Amino acid sequence: MPKARLEAFSDGVIAVIITIMVLEMKVPHGTDLASLLPLWPVFLAYLLSFVYVGIYWNNHHHLLHAVDHVSGGILWSNLHLLFWLSLVPFVTGWMSENHFAALPVALYGVVLLLSALAFVLLTQCLIVIHGKGSQLARSIHGDAKGKISIAIYAVAIPLAFVRSWIALGLYAIVATLWFVPDRRIEKPR
Amino acid sequence: MPKARLEAFSDGVIAVIITIMVLEMKVPHGTDLASLLPLWPVFLAYLLSFVYVGIYWNNHHHLLHAVDHVSGGILWSNLHLLFWLSLVPFVTGWMSENHFAALPVALYGVVLLLSALAFVLLTQCLIVIHGKGSQLARSIHGDAKGKISIAIYAVAIPLAFVRSWIALGLYAIVATLWFVPDRRIEKPR
Amino acid sequence: MPKARLEAFSDGVIAVIITIMVLEMKVPHGTDLASLLPLWPVFLAYLLSFVYVGIYWNNHHHLLHAVDHVSGGILWSNLHLLFWLSLVPFVTGWMSENHFAALPVALYGVVLLLSALAFVLLTQCLIVIHGKGSQLARSIHGDAKGKISIAIYAVAIPLAFVRSWIALGLYAIVATLWFVPDRRIEKPR
Amino acid sequence: MPKARLEAFSDGVIAVIITIMVLEMKVPHGTDLASLLPLWPVFLAYLLSFVYVGIYWNNHHHLLHAVDHVSGGILWSNLHLLFWLSLVPFVTGWMSENHFAALPVALYGVVLLLSALAFVLLTQCLIVIHGKGSQLARSIHGDAKGKISIAIYAVAIPLAFVRSWIALGLYAIVATLWFVPDRRIEKPR
Repeated sequence: MPKARLEAFSDGVIAVIITIMVLEMKVPHGTDLASLLPLWPVFLAYLLSFVYVGIYWNNHHHLLHAVDHVSGGILWSNLHLLFWLSLVPFVTGWMSENHFAALPVALYGVVLLLSALAFVLLTQCLIVIHGKGSQLARSIHGDAKGKISIAIYAVAIPLAFVRSWIALGLYAIVATLWFVPDRRIEKPR
Repeated sequence: MPKARLEAFSDGVIAVIITIMVLEMKVPHGTDLASLLPLWPVFLAYLLSFVYVGIYWNNHHHLLHAVDHVSGGILWSNLHLLFWLSLVPFVTGWMSENHFAALPVALYGVVLLLSALAFVLLTQCLIVIHGKGSQLARSIHGDAKGKISIAIYAVAIPLAFVRSWIALGLYAIVATLWFVPDRRIEKPR
Repeated sequence: MPKARLEAFSDGVIAVIITIMVLEMKVPHGTDLASLLPLWPVFLAYLLSFVYVGIYWNNHHHLLHAVDHVSGGILWSNLHLLFWLSLVPFVTGWMSENHFAALPVALYGVVLLLSALAFVLLTQCLIVIHGKGSQLARSIHGDAKGKISIAIYAVAIPLAFVRSWIALGLYAIVATLWFVPDRRIEKPR
Repeated sequence: MPKARLEAFSDGVIAVIITIMVLEMKVPHGTDLASLLPLWPVFLAYLLSFVYVGIYWNNHHHLLHAVDHVSGGILWSNLHLLFWLSLVPFVTGWMSENHFAALPVALYGVVLLLSALAFVLLTQCLIVIHGKGSQLARSIHGDAKGKISIAIYAVAIPLAFVRSWIALGLYAIVATLWFVPDRRIEKPR
């Protein structure tokens, strides 16, 4: 099967996810700075989640760019990734409306971790149908950045219960890691 | 008429449907497990509906993949399917906010049943314009999975008034049936 | 300029419009028929608006299908149409939450009328850049259905203040008129 | 990398942004003119923001039309633009629900200013990867309209604290400037 519709549907879902998050930023009732300022945690969380969803879209773009065809299993593997990403607005809202309390920050990390694992799974499924010797497989080998991210999430989640700011700092570090697009896939093209 | 725009519009509508359902998961006010746990029926219902809408997208993808061209009647037949799917967020919300009470669970089944019938109708309309001898027609013949699903829905809906969990179990069984993509259409390509 | 992106953007906007209307159908609090039944005007209005937005998508599809290229002016003419369509969820909600009171039903008709005029304007702009002798121009000539629709809206809007059901009946008649896709454009292809 | 998916994703995000703004127009409770009229600032703000988002979509369309290929950096530069645009519904809502008070009107201008700067940055990034001698670079040279817009925003934002209507008038003037599509890019094709 061609990959065009998988890309189009993923673009649509990710576009809606990244945009409806802004609905969490409820319009304040007052008109002065004092009524706007309490929104800063919501804005910060929105920014972090926007960057994260943006990272997933970028990486998805790079990954599918190196792909020739997809199968029925890939469609489900992709939906699995979109499922975890679709929970990002919920955990963003919960975290930011509670000033980054421990459990919401940890759950935010859990959703990031499960999204990361879903991306690895999608990558592996794509390698299976393209073959170990394919350009896709060679360009992924090692996947250090993916493994480091998952390790950092695994460390950050329990640390959220010590100091939620440590966990948030670690999430921000992972985001920075991925900010640079995945050159492994972009280069060989 | 070419099928590209029908696919693009369907992708857009299904992407919005699958994503706005998460807006039903209202952010809890507390920050402890005790305030998160009451959300489990909402989460479970979201998961079930995500899988169902995902199944429809997958099957729509497989079906249209085997299609050469569409007509004005197909556009309406497709909108008819999208109409019933667009009610999934509503019945999901009603069912999950009421802890799977009998009538909401039955109505959820009715929407699933009408969506399934709409998919059969769309398939038949496509076969009519492609001809009985077309590859599409041959690959659909029998459609055992579609008929079994409709039969199970018809049994599940009244059973919701006996025990709503029986109906939900039957909905989950149908979802599992379809989880495997429709190989009849995928294979001959 | 090619028309692909105009189609893609219009598909996206219309897909969001047609889907967010369902958010107006607020989940009822009870779980019995008595709590579901008061929703019938909301459901009926949703159905009517779904059909109307579906008609606009179908006609837009048919119109653009007969188009070769677009210009900067066409982009704005198309946005103008999308603007009026984007007000459909608002007037649908106002009308249905007030049991089809006179003013909301009239305003619903005004939005339908302005959408119809915007569609005529878009068609005329497309004819201007394709030339009077183009296939597009020939296939549109007369446009009886468009003119009849506009005349019916103009009659229905004041009648909403006499009996709102007369106006609604007229809106339904126009919808039925357009339910049959625009064969003038489909045929010559 | 080809530009198709960047366009598709941007279309999706902008389509959602332009459409969810209408959700800010809350359905009034009464059914007479007296209950509809208080909505005029919300409607006016919606119209202004619809035109602005429409302008960005049009300009994005024109800009990408002149582009051959994109890079990983372009993806981020584009997401940066979408981020500021995604805040338009929020500032529109804040401004209109407070009858155009000074600070909300100023913040609206800040979001417009940052969106304009993000568009300039995206344009510059595209010129960098296409080369100074490319058709894209030549068609942009000067970019008087972009510079004038940014200057007007910079003047309008502080003026919002003197009279918010002056700022709004200036925003409307910029919108009018851009209403005419960017012929510099359209022409040479």
